[in-house]
This record gives sequence, structure tokens and C-alpha cells, in this order.
Amino acid sequence: MARRELEPHRVVRLEEDAVVLLDQRRLPDEEVELRCTSVAQLVDAIRTLAIRGAPSIGIAAAYGLALASERGEDLDLAYAGLVGSRPTAVNLRWALDAMRAEPTRERAEELHAEEVERCRRMGAHAVELFPEGARVLTHCNAGGLATGGYGSALGAIRAAAAAGRVAHVWVGETRPLLQGSRLTAWELEQLGIPHAVIADSAAASFMARDEVDLVVTGADRIAANGDTANKIGTYGLAVAATYHGLPLVVVAPTSTLDPAAADGADIPIEERDPGELTTRFAARNPAFDVTPAHLVAAIVTEIGVHRAPYATTLPRATAVVQ
Amino acid sequence: MARRELEPHRVVRLEEDAVVLLDQRRLPDEEVELRCTSVAQLVDAIRTLAIRGAPSIGIAAAYGLALASERGEDLDLAYAGLVGSRPTAVNLRWALDAMRAEPTRERAEELHAEEVERCRRMGAHAVELFPEGARVLTHCNAGGLATGGYGSALGAIRAAAAAGRVAHVWVGETRPLLQGSRLTAWELEQLGIPHAVIADSAAASFMARDEVDLVVTGADRIAANGDTANKIGTYGLAVAATYHGLPLVVVAPTSTLDPAAADGADIPIEERDPGELTTRFAARNPAFDVTPAHLVAAIVTEIGVHRAPYATTLPRATAVVQ
Repeated sequence: MARRELEPHRVVRLEEDAVVLLDQRRLPDEEVELRCTSVAQLVDAIRTLAIRGAPSIGIAAAYGLALASERGEDLDLAYAGLVGSRPTAVNLRWALDAMRAEPTRERAEELHAEEVERCRRMGAHAVELFPEGARVLTHCNAGGLATGGYGSALGAIRAAAAAGRVAHVWVGETRPLLQGSRLTAWELEQLGIPHAVIADSAAASFMARDEVDLVVTGADRIAANGDTANKIGTYGLAVAATYHGLPLVVVAPTSTLDPAAADGADIPIEERDPGELTTRFAARNPAFDVTPAHLVAAIVTEIGVHRAPYATTLPRATAVVQ
Repeated sequence: MARRELEPHRVVRLEEDAVVLLDQRRLPDEEVELRCTSVAQLVDAIRTLAIRGAPSIGIAAAYGLALASERGEDLDLAYAGLVGSRPTAVNLRWALDAMRAEPTRERAEELHAEEVERCRRMGAHAVELFPEGARVLTHCNAGGLATGGYGSALGAIRAAAAAGRVAHVWVGETRPLLQGSRLTAWELEQLGIPHAVIADSAAASFMARDEVDLVVTGADRIAANGDTANKIGTYGLAVAATYHGLPLVVVAPTSTLDPAAADGADIPIEERDPGELTTRFAARNPAFDVTPAHLVAAIVTEIGVHRAPYATTLPRATAVVQ
């Protein structure tokens, strides 16, 4: 099929009177845009995952704050509503704080463009971590949809594929909301990168069959010591990868680093509606888990490739950005 | 709620002109019986998982052979069709071979009653493996539905719960066909045993939070060295359990032992329709995986609790039965 780029403005943009986003709940069946004409609508869109992925949430919130500012609305109220819409992603607070000093349309667009540029840089840095003919396993969606364009983990896979290093991508379907089989497979199809969806529980088995070379994921928040919060299931993949001697590579912008969180215990884990799993029986539905730093082979930010001890290497990245 | 036993004849029985089974595809929404009036219909019912679970498949096939025999049909043809309906479960061949010498209704009913009795004995043996207040994690359905009544892994959980040792059961939903969230949760609800469904990928995370004491599963086939084939995802649970210092206990009747398979490499793994995962994108859908013996803390059969080295201890169980 023809290769098709997911342009940043298709993921999310600010129009005259609305934050407009590609409704990710309806992909891949329909490509429908959702117009959020109020901050309340945008908060609802974030909560219900019409837009998701830590960087994309931050960008959408920045546009929301710009819209509220143009309308002369109470910015403290808008900030409070947006910052509480998802608890785990730290980029949300990061983007909103960055908007505070200059809550304009231009600033939000600048943040969006910078986020995409960071993804391109992460991709370029990550290529060296892919062996020739890499069979990559990824989880959830850390693609253009999640990052306002291009992608973090999927950006790394794109860059490695462009360098001729990717043979195949295994896509964990990512229960309960299927971001892998709905969104990542959709992006990979558009990019023309060979892939196959698997049940999340099958990942360890494909590792045991020697059909996986590395695991690449994004992150929603990374603590000062390198402990990484990401979509539920990432931790299990990290344990399985380590057991099989395979590297887990985390690709995430510096906006995901949270120096205020000493370790994973300081990261709040969102517990979502059990009805996403079953409406008939009791259920527990944590949306994220924390992978301890010692199971993370490398963290790639726009600054470069960081390795353990992360407590030493991550602050350097933060220092460069500030 | 009132506790309600799943009687063996509700799972599967032979009526005058049909093998009648509780259609597991329609649980928990509807309790509907499926009447298979021909061997071809029964083969289709097994292939499409109207009845599933290695022992239940074996019992259903035995009834099918009895029906074919009463009608004077070609028993070789019936045998061939039934034995090929699912490739991984070895009980299927075991039950059909046991029927060969005496392909009667009485013999099939005897095999069914013996299977249920084996489950009760497994349950009694397994109780000692449960600590007080055990938080148990199970996968797929190894309950009464899977075994013609009572259950293997779930039978062990029932017996331990009756002995006051079970605080809680975590039920992996078991993608793609949700045998956990549809069937195991349904059985646990009827039995009044506290439980919660979780995404398969969340299991490792609950282990890391110290909310799991042991993992208990059934098996579809166990090789001579103890390598165990079971529902896809079991291997990943075994790796995670081992990483967290938790035991994986396999509960399965001796009919599941396959001395002809030297190790897991000799067990055929059924690859099912990718459409069970996604009809939109490429997918891979192995239905089972193999857990190497060194990750299995104990195998419980109706003979007792077996421990490594399984190559020595399992043949003793087989010898007692023969």
C-alpha cells in the first residue's frame, strides 16, 4: 500500500474555536475528528481516550489552555481541570506549566512542533540499538498518535526501518483498550512496515521461540532513578525480556522525566473502570505499571541514549534541556 | 449468591440421539445447550470451542464414538475426525483409545465419571500447596467446564477454598477468547469464591505488588520431562512467577501425561485463526505455549503431588494408573 505520513495537525490542532483531534477511540474503523469547543469537552476527550499517549495529551492540554486564554476564561480553573484529567502522564503538567508564562496559540503550536522534533531526534539516536534484521516487539501505541506526530517507540522503529534494520514488528494488542491492535497496527500499515498483532500473553512465548530481538516501548513517566511507568503489561514484558537476555529499550522525550519522583513508588498509577474488562464480574483495571530501572537496558530521549546508573545519566539530559 | 454446583451432565452428556453440551461460546450471557446429532457436528463443536478444555474434549469425543457405534457408523472414520479436531490436548486421543475396546454408552459414561473423580482427588491432593489466606492467580478455564465437572486447577482452588485457605482468586481474562473472564469468573461466582478479573498483561504487576501467593493452572499435555503445554500465556506467567519467587502449580489428570513426548518440542501447538485477534491487520494466534519443567514447582495428578525431577516422578504416576 502507499505509505502515508500521519501529519501532526491530524493528531491534534487548534482551530478558531475548538481543539480538533483525530478520535482514537474510533480507529481503525473510522477516521473521525472530534471538535472540543470547551476545556470541559477536552478534559472529557482526554479522560475517555479520544486522545491518549503522554505527549499527545500534553499538546492537547496546551491547545486547551490557549483556547481558554483567548476567550478570557479562568486559566487556573482550566489548568486544574486539564492537569487532573489523567494522573500518570507527567508531560501533561509539563506542557501546562510551559504554557503558564505565555498561554497563547503560538506557544502551544511551538510546543507541538518541538515535541515532534524531539521524536525525530529520539528516532535518530535509537537506530544504533537495533541489530540488522531486528524482530522488534512493542506494546500499546507510542506512535504518531501518542506523541502529536512521528512517534517515540514507533518513531525509533520507523527510523530503524528507514535504515533497513527492521525485519518485523510484533504488536501486543494491549488489553483492555487494544491500542496495539487498533492504533499501532494501523500506523505500521500506513508506514508499510511488516508487522503482526499478538495476544499480550503470547509475547514471552515468541521470545522463547527466538523470534524477538528487542522490546521497544514508550513511557508515561520516568522517575529520577530510571523506574519507568508505562502501559500495563510493560513490566511483564520487561521481566520476560530480561529472562530471555533481550534488551528493553524505553524511548521517551525529556518531558517524560520527573525528577520530583525519586523512584517508581512516587508515580501514581491510574486505576480505570473495571467495565473496560468485564461488565459482568468483579475486575481490577490498573492502566499502567512500573518497570524498575534495573530491567531497562536503555532510555532514549531527544538528547541521546542513556544507560544505567540512570540516577546519574538522566539528570544530565534534564540539565541540557533546561 | 446461592452456591451452585456445575453438575457433570450439564457440561456434556449423551442423550438418545445426540451428544448434548453446554455451549461455552455463549457463556456467561446465556446458558444454552447444543445438540450434536452427528460426529461431524461434534467435531465442529470442538473445533469452534463450544466445548473446550482438554478433559472435556476427551469426554465429548468418547460420547461421540459411543453414538457412532450405536448407529453402526464407521468407527475408524469417527475416530479420525474426532482425534484431529484439536491437536494439542492429548486426553482426546487417550479417551478415544480407551473407547476403542468397548465403544459403548456405558463405557463413555464411566470415563466421564472417572474424570470427575480424578478431579476431586487432585483437589484433595493440591490443598497442601495453598498457604493460609492464599491469593491465587489462574489463567484460562480449568474448571468444571473444562473437565466434565469439578475442575482441575479450579478444582484445586475449590478444595482449598473449602478448607478455608483461599482469600482471593485473580482471573486472567485469557485473550483472545476470554475463557477467564467468561468461564472461570462465571464458575467462581457460582461457587461463591472471591475473585477479580485482570488483563493478562497485569499479572506480573500484581505479583510485584505482593498480591499473589501462587499461580495455579491446568494443562493440555505434559511431556515425559514435565514440560507442560497449556493455554497461551501460561509460559509468561511461569517466567514472572519464577522471577518473583512464586510457585507455579499445574493441576492435571494422568490422562494429560504423554510419555511419548520426550519434551515440549514434541508437543504440537495449535495455531488458530488470526481473526480471533483482529480481522483488520496481520496477526499470529498460537493457542498454547510450553512451560519448561524447571519453571513448574509441582504437578498435581489424581495420584498425588509430583515434584522435579519429573522424568523420574511422572512415570510412577503413569505406572499406578496402568
